[in-house]
Amino acid sequence: MAGVEVERKWLIPGLLPPEVAVVHADEIEQGYLTIGADGSETRLRRRAGSCTLTVKSGGGLVRRETEVPLTQEQFEMLWPATENARVQKQRRAVPGDGGVTIEVDVYSGRLDGLVVAEVEFDDPWGAESFVAPYWFGREVTADDAYKNRSLAVHGRPS
Amino acid sequence: MAGVEVERKWLIPGLLPPEVAVVHADEIEQGYLTIGADGSETRLRRRAGSCTLTVKSGGGLVRRETEVPLTQEQFEMLWPATENARVQKQRRAVPGDGGVTIEVDVYSGRLDGLVVAEVEFDDPWGAESFVAPYWFGREVTADDAYKNRSLAVHGRPS
Repeated sequence: MAGVEVERKWLIPGLLPPEVAVVHADEIEQGYLTIGADGSETRLRRRAGSCTLTVKSGGGLVRRETEVPLTQEQFEMLWPATENARVQKQRRAVPGDGGVTIEVDVYSGRLDGLVVAEVEFDDPWGAESFVAPYWFGREVTADDAYKNRSLAVHGRPS
Repeated sequence: MAGVEVERKWLIPGLLPPEVAVVHADEIEQGYLTIGADGSETRLRRRAGSCTLTVKSGGGLVRRETEVPLTQEQFEMLWPATENARVQKQRRAVPGDGGVTIEVDVYSGRLDGLVVAEVEFDDPWGAESFVAPYWFGREVTADDAYKNRSLAVHGRPS
């Protein structure tokens, strides 16, 4: 699996307003095996019981992503090696304007209280023209401190 | 699998002398998915057809190592992500004095011509008292440039 993502990310300062419909929710645990100085990473994820290993290549405009399924047993063997570099969150899918899906990540554990919305776009034009709903807070697309691997290692930015 | 290794490493300047018996030889391909600034690494290896994923934790006195078997299919999916960070070698096992096994790595491909001998010891005392055979060259135990991940990324030191 490989792809080029155009993604924007916002903090959600409060609770989701009642009119926001959550159409799907998954528990996600992810842990980092190795984080490279060049921005590369090798990550374990268990989402709704499915386990994967994902390798993201270093920086640059096109970031390659490789993903393979792991068995539960392989996951359990590798998981201890992610100690001190984990995040736990519930990912909620919410329909947004223009047919986009808003993914709302509600963190738990050490990051309890942090809520982040992510929207993925097919092209840069869609990303630019997207109007954030009123319940979105500050945009953090360009803030590396809100990358999952930073949150996993350093915790919530103060 | 976890362990503390006491290992020494030497360059082999020429061919193995004829009286040195190779008791076993395996083809090894290994590639690095991510190399961390702290000395951690996530590595793929195929040795005599068996595929593994190995995670080595960062520096410090005790370096933790976690290894899981991969299927051939998982290996093939991940292998492209190791592009530009691979080594290929034949590992030859040679009996050494005092019951130790000398592992002679004969590199090929981009590292063709490089031959390195490694000896692993149960304790520091064994490591210190070991007398290198006459066909060993310069010791490179402490030279990071001869670590496999350095060879994989930077090639042979000049």
